[in-house]
Amino acid sequence: MNARPRLVVVGGDAAGMSAASQARRRMGPEDLEIVALERGSHTSYSACGIPYLVGKTVPSPEDLIARTPAVFWRDHAIEARTGTEVTAIDTERREVTATGPGGAYTERYDRLVIATGARPYRPDLPGFDAYGVFGVQTLDDGTEVSAFLERHAPHRAVVVGGGYIGLEMAEAFLTRGLEVTVVDSGPEPMGTLDPDMGALVRGAMEEMGVAVRTGERATAVAVDGGRVRAVHTDAGGEYPADIVCLGLGVRPDDRLARDAGLEIGPTGGVKVDARMRTSVPDVWAAGDCVEVFHRVSRAPAAIALGTHANKQGRVAGIDIGGGYARFEGVVGTAVTKICAVEVARTGLNEAEAEAAGFAYETVVMTSDSRAGYYPGAQPMRLKLIAERDTGRLLGGQIVGRENAAKRIDVLATALWNGMDVLDMSGMDLGYAPPFSPVWDPVLIAARKLAERVHG
Amino acid sequence: MNARPRLVVVGGDAAGMSAASQARRRMGPEDLEIVALERGSHTSYSACGIPYLVGKTVPSPEDLIARTPAVFWRDHAIEARTGTEVTAIDTERREVTATGPGGAYTERYDRLVIATGARPYRPDLPGFDAYGVFGVQTLDDGTEVSAFLERHAPHRAVVVGGGYIGLEMAEAFLTRGLEVTVVDSGPEPMGTLDPDMGALVRGAMEEMGVAVRTGERATAVAVDGGRVRAVHTDAGGEYPADIVCLGLGVRPDDRLARDAGLEIGPTGGVKVDARMRTSVPDVWAAGDCVEVFHRVSRAPAAIALGTHANKQGRVAGIDIGGGYARFEGVVGTAVTKICAVEVARTGLNEAEAEAAGFAYETVVMTSDSRAGYYPGAQPMRLKLIAERDTGRLLGGQIVGRENAAKRIDVLATALWNGMDVLDMSGMDLGYAPPFSPVWDPVLIAARKLAERVHG
Repeated sequence: MNARPRLVVVGGDAAGMSAASQARRRMGPEDLEIVALERGSHTSYSACGIPYLVGKTVPSPEDLIARTPAVFWRDHAIEARTGTEVTAIDTERREVTATGPGGAYTERYDRLVIATGARPYRPDLPGFDAYGVFGVQTLDDGTEVSAFLERHAPHRAVVVGGGYIGLEMAEAFLTRGLEVTVVDSGPEPMGTLDPDMGALVRGAMEEMGVAVRTGERATAVAVDGGRVRAVHTDAGGEYPADIVCLGLGVRPDDRLARDAGLEIGPTGGVKVDARMRTSVPDVWAAGDCVEVFHRVSRAPAAIALGTHANKQGRVAGIDIGGGYARFEGVVGTAVTKICAVEVARTGLNEAEAEAAGFAYETVVMTSDSRAGYYPGAQPMRLKLIAERDTGRLLGGQIVGRENAAKRIDVLATALWNGMDVLDMSGMDLGYAPPFSPVWDPVLIAARKLAERVHG
Repeated sequence: MNARPRLVVVGGDAAGMSAASQARRRMGPEDLEIVALERGSHTSYSACGIPYLVGKTVPSPEDLIARTPAVFWRDHAIEARTGTEVTAIDTERREVTATGPGGAYTERYDRLVIATGARPYRPDLPGFDAYGVFGVQTLDDGTEVSAFLERHAPHRAVVVGGGYIGLEMAEAFLTRGLEVTVVDSGPEPMGTLDPDMGALVRGAMEEMGVAVRTGERATAVAVDGGRVRAVHTDAGGEYPADIVCLGLGVRPDDRLARDAGLEIGPTGGVKVDARMRTSVPDVWAAGDCVEVFHRVSRAPAAIALGTHANKQGRVAGIDIGGGYARFEGVVGTAVTKICAVEVARTGLNEAEAEAAGFAYETVVMTSDSRAGYYPGAQPMRLKLIAERDTGRLLGGQIVGRENAAKRIDVLATALWNGMDVLDMSGMDLGYAPPFSPVWDPVLIAARKLAERVHG
């Protein structure tokens, strides 16, 4: 039995378990032993669903768990050990050191997948480790926030960071009836949008009753009697809080990989090729811990997102199982919403285009989501960025209401294909009054931008 | 004054008026006289909105009129004469013969745009010209149907033809509280979908209480006492009707162009190049009366759709005004809905792929419109067709509920770029639980089809 090659997977969430399943699809239990080691108490859950759990839009943590370890073990002969933290990887000896419920031990591997995910940025500042200050990275975090809400019935929430998680947690707290303040150090919330588009998000948030404090950096959480009381900022702000939620972004969790001597890229993510192979033979990496090719900037990018993690894990698993697959990069697409307001972006924003060395032109326009005369038509704001001279699309941003956000997929597909805005302006997109004006907003924006680029 | 070159536009709807406006944008009234001749009583209205007018989703005919002749005349110095039918074009003498409110006259032109649109197919069968049998091609048709509904309060409607207009009129009659029967000669309604997808539309229609009679061709409308009573079919069906609506499709209205000696293509549409120039110098054509290049079949296609008409008119107008623009073809995208059920298609269906000489593979799958755990997730059915061996996408079809139809735009964009399904399966589409499962339905379908094509 021990002669079977053994695949060890470090991290049992989207990327790790996708890799394990794909490897298993190609190699049966008689040809490959698979052991997945997961620090937390769950495998393969939807981390992106946590804000909706806190907001009670999704009733139970179980709803977010796609697969339980027991089922995995039984159906796929994958040994998934939860509560087991890998503390070191030795690529010379081909073994990992892990601490599980029964203590520390080593586990040899023939092939290894590193899927350690991302760790949230948690500043080393007074009070940030107090009871009542939460991150929302893991499902355990989510259930802790929910338990806190039930137990203490807080009235005022301060969300530190106005990005995706910040927005989604602001919605969750609003839904639970709390007063919400969002503090962000940038000029506007949603810093992956340009400020002119982020300002629309701010306006919508304020209309919902969220207090938005931008240009201020949180410096301390005031704690009194074991309970958080307020968030202080470098602008002298003091925002009363019964609960504080951190949404300051994440970085690749490269600690194990770095200590093991794997090559780490400039973004801090593990360096991999398109088959998700690392710099060390027989070691793959996938998910939020890696950096990948950004097809627009042509530079490495570390983007923590479940959909990428799933794809990358699948590619790694196929490669491990003897198949052929490639992860062909990202274009930086992301969508979210806060209550009825939908937000989407893809490609490069102005600052990113600048940083990547592009000269560019932009267009911003407002259009209806349906024919103007059709009931329920809602204005949406659309921004496009194209390379000067060539007109090649570099990025797009959308802020709107129902049916707005997923229109970003047209722009993502255009970016994927390196389209220019003139070509885009002729595309044959679906038209009927309930779905779009006769000129789809994407076509109008592309046409206006083409006129600007080409005169 | 008469030394100014004169542009005459035959047909004052989307294509004609877009051409006129674009020409005017580039040439002022001192350089170009523009006369638009429109048979009906309105210019530039949304014909696609007529079913929603009948269903009272849109309250008034005025809502559908984008521009009135008076406003045009005033603001753009375009003389738009409604109630004026062009009866002949003489390309030798460069003049058109028209019959207006004041009688017949000739009008010379230096440049001519033919934008005569499409005419609905109206079979020459007993009773089809009776009072109570309606087409829904023009706004006047729409107001007539509405007036009939008010005056006679019919209980039972029979819709002959189960395509886009048929579906939309069925919805309109349902909304108005009528019992509705749809008769279609094909195996399933929505003949531009494959029958397996059309069957889903049938199921949804039947759930709404619509009687769907397929495989039957209407042969007569029974009339009694000046009122329609029933529709008879070749299968012996007799469907009681107080009102009958025809949705049998349209064909390019090429009569004037054909009589004038312009080259007509195999589809019956006026032949034009990418700048919308016809076979005769100084004569352009645009809108539902032309045939255009289908980028997937590589063959000419005549597709009556407002969005194409607008684009084509714009191209013609730019060319007339001395600018440069091209209409780069279509991929056959169309979307519609009947009540809550959304339907979309693009590219070639199986029969069309076969006819175009493609060997192909297909995949059909059901996926959720949102993350499965997110409230409101609705199943949607997605079908993809790809060329055998290469995997190049040939077409796609969607039947679903909210947020389903416009996902066709991703497929339309992929078709526009000639993508293969393997490349598509890696695309970076927007993911967040309220908007999509972690694997977007398009990605899953593309992946499955890639596996089928490439093994």
